Amino acid sequence: MLNKKPVLDYGYIALVTTWGSDEEIIEAARMSTGKGFKSWGTPEAPGDERLLSYLYKHKHMTPFEMCGMTLEAKCPIFVFREWHRHRTQSFNEMSARYIPLPDENYLPTIDRCMVKKNDSKNKQSDGFGENVLTERQTKTWLLELSELYKHAQHVYEHGLDCGIPKELARLSVPVARYSRMRATANLRNWLQFLTLRMNINAQWEIRMYANAVGDLIRQCFPRTWELFVSDGIVNHEKQS
Amino acid sequence: MLNKKPVLDYGYIALVTTWGSDEEIIEAARMSTGKGFKSWGTPEAPGDERLLSYLYKHKHMTPFEMCGMTLEAKCPIFVFREWHRHRTQSFNEMSARYIPLPDENYLPTIDRCMVKKNDSKNKQSDGFGENVLTERQTKTWLLELSELYKHAQHVYEHGLDCGIPKELARLSVPVARYSRMRATANLRNWLQFLTLRMNINAQWEIRMYANAVGDLIRQCFPRTWELFVSDGIVNHEKQS
Amino acid sequence: MLNKKPVLDYGYIALVTTWGSDEEIIEAARMSTGKGFKSWGTPEAPGDERLLSYLYKHKHMTPFEMCGMTLEAKCPIFVFREWHRHRTQSFNEMSARYIPLPDENYLPTIDRCMVKKNDSKNKQSDGFGENVLTERQTKTWLLELSELYKHAQHVYEHGLDCGIPKELARLSVPVARYSRMRATANLRNWLQFLTLRMNINAQWEIRMYANAVGDLIRQCFPRTWELFVSDGIVNHEKQS
Amino acid sequence: MLNKKPVLDYGYIALVTTWGSDEEIIEAARMSTGKGFKSWGTPEAPGDERLLSYLYKHKHMTPFEMCGMTLEAKCPIFVFREWHRHRTQSFNEMSARYIPLPDENYLPTIDRCMVKKNDSKNKQSDGFGENVLTERQTKTWLLELSELYKHAQHVYEHGLDCGIPKELARLSVPVARYSRMRATANLRNWLQFLTLRMNINAQWEIRMYANAVGDLIRQCFPRTWELFVSDGIVNHEKQS
Repeated sequence: MLNKKPVLDYGYIALVTTWGSDEEIIEAARMSTGKGFKSWGTPEAPGDERLLSYLYKHKHMTPFEMCGMTLEAKCPIFVFREWHRHRTQSFNEMSARYIPLPDENYLPTIDRCMVKKNDSKNKQSDGFGENVLTERQTKTWLLELSELYKHAQHVYEHGLDCGIPKELARLSVPVARYSRMRATANLRNWLQFLTLRMNINAQWEIRMYANAVGDLIRQCFPRTWELFVSDGIVNHEKQS
Repeated sequence: MLNKKPVLDYGYIALVTTWGSDEEIIEAARMSTGKGFKSWGTPEAPGDERLLSYLYKHKHMTPFEMCGMTLEAKCPIFVFREWHRHRTQSFNEMSARYIPLPDENYLPTIDRCMVKKNDSKNKQSDGFGENVLTERQTKTWLLELSELYKHAQHVYEHGLDCGIPKELARLSVPVARYSRMRATANLRNWLQFLTLRMNINAQWEIRMYANAVGDLIRQCFPRTWELFVSDGIVNHEKQS
Repeated sequence: MLNKKPVLDYGYIALVTTWGSDEEIIEAARMSTGKGFKSWGTPEAPGDERLLSYLYKHKHMTPFEMCGMTLEAKCPIFVFREWHRHRTQSFNEMSARYIPLPDENYLPTIDRCMVKKNDSKNKQSDGFGENVLTERQTKTWLLELSELYKHAQHVYEHGLDCGIPKELARLSVPVARYSRMRATANLRNWLQFLTLRMNINAQWEIRMYANAVGDLIRQCFPRTWELFVSDGIVNHEKQS
Repeated sequence: MLNKKPVLDYGYIALVTTWGSDEEIIEAARMSTGKGFKSWGTPEAPGDERLLSYLYKHKHMTPFEMCGMTLEAKCPIFVFREWHRHRTQSFNEMSARYIPLPDENYLPTIDRCMVKKNDSKNKQSDGFGENVLTERQTKTWLLELSELYKHAQHVYEHGLDCGIPKELARLSVPVARYSRMRATANLRNWLQFLTLRMNINAQWEIRMYANAVGDLIRQCFPRTWELFVSDGIVNHEKQS
């Protein structure tokens, strides 16, 4: 798999295929006037990058539908739940009706859990209670969580072993369980995905995946990526 | 809420709103020839039901996009995971990032678990192991499952209480947990949903929801429903 | 037909049906927190209009997909060519393969043709030549155009009369010829249509249709319309 | 341009780019079970062609969304009017608001016009009148049509020359006028396009374009094409 990028504790993003190019975006846009791609320019003598910038800034986005990317993603189920709301992508996902899902569950780090309330503008990541969360409490809870994961796996395996249908045995699986899929979309719709999922209001976990998708777009469509980044949407945080 | 139909142990389907009618389908189709709806006929003197039937049988489906339904659904997460793959619907769902999900989890009946292998043409509903599942084993496993639900809820609540962010505390929630949403689609796309989800190959749980959606379509668009049913796709099973 | 609004010389926009409401947008959005619509407020004691405004301004647009409108439109073919690029709408149009199109063709006014180059920021509406267009030239050209319409109709009718297939006889029809359709979309997508087609860069003719669609939205979804208008996109010009 | 195929008197279809492959369809489908592409087989020892066939026949079409094609098409406007109803494709077309459309108009052959009524099951291609169309009448009408094309071009050019805005000068252009576009779609949606447009009920002109698109799919996705053809939908007629 090309360009496999690890994300979170067990996940990854990997490029499967890509089509089109910054040049083909120009060619498609020039259909309106019957002309093709001429050439990229320099800062002194700018070329077709001016048209690319014009298209992007004035939201003439159809030419950006002439390119795209297919990738593979391994994510916890709660991340897929958010991802699959993007209805312009096509998905093929592993199914627990066909095969038992491997025993891999997302366990956040202590730092990730202890986001400070006053540091964050993101209400969703606030704790629910009024109490101040201590490192010790966090450690304890993560231990409880990993014990729960073991318990859930035990019930899952026991169900499978004694002959409970796979599609029911999975009821015990937590939304932290990893699954895997292929996703494909055109460039316009990948950028729309990133606009929502690289945003500071998106949950930190899906932002890590969006950042990895962004890295692939930067490699495949560098001039479009530059325009996207200059919009100020991008918010690269280090992965903890 | 109109027409609230209970489904499974805690779920339901309820009609929110509906638009268009069998008559408006005819009117839309008659745009091509500049004529409108005339009248429904009788078996002896058939009327516009012939055009409706012609449209449906020859897959001229655009006129069926002129009607639709918005409904509310309460389903386990694993059912929503399948439902949300229908990209032509619009969804607004409860979010565990904003409020704690209520402690309701789907627990199947003993009969549901003990589907006999040789009776079923549906490979997905087979058990994974080679052993024959007994009623006693099933009872035991369901007890284990409900114990796991309690354990998961305990970890969830403990996390929330000590200040773990809501969006992380939910990691312990099983895919059997109930959530709630509104869904809207046009009639063509509801029929496509039913074609896939009333099918014998669909998981029994989502079929129960699809049957309830079908009941609403039968009430709102009775002539279109008749054509859909006569296709032989529908497969009403009793809800156990 | 409800609310039939004349547009251009032979065209119109008419409301067929509408579904949902500003209130249902709130209800759909409140699914995330499990609460419903409370009440609209007053300037002194604002109510749910604050949530509506928040949704619109932060582009949480899914709740706006829970409402919609079906309408009928009679437009010249060149307007339909632009309109049909909106892929989120459903269309049923009159077909010249089934019935001969009535002999109605759009003839612009003299004022419409004589848009002054320096007054307009819209390059597309500029004339092609370098010469200054006079009123006399415009009158002459419009006369030539209406003569051409007669000639085209003559060839069309002659073809139909002597037995040329309808689908070929229409080859002579100009893009100014009127046709008729029904179109349906949800509110989010109607607003997107208006964003592009009420814009000063859209051709004046489709803007007149967009304005008429906007009037229907104002009637059916007054609070959403207010938010849309306050964006500054709307640009009501008088119809000449 | 790769694989440029002439269609009708001035038109063509040309391949711009393609992505994915029959193999990647298998890989995407195998996500459900966590396995990849193994190998194609032979008649004696069949391989993954069995899965491809199973997917296609049981309408598991998402894996066919992982491939696609971008192409360029030059067609008369009345063909684009039908083509653009396919809302799952992305289009960039030449615009008469920006540049004058070249003086090329579709003129059918005598044979094409003289389709015999009783030979055809296609009501749309019937003549409108009751009379029997003779070869002499057809020749006369085609001469009238080409005279009309000249007249229309004269009015168009005169308008442009004296300064009528390009977007209005085009009113005189007949729907037989050629235009040019790029179109992109995934394989599933190209097959859906062909299902409707290679069908005997589609107008002969768009069928010629659909056949040319089919030739490209045959080259790029030979195993999927075979499955599509074996459905009996394809109806290759010779281009007259």
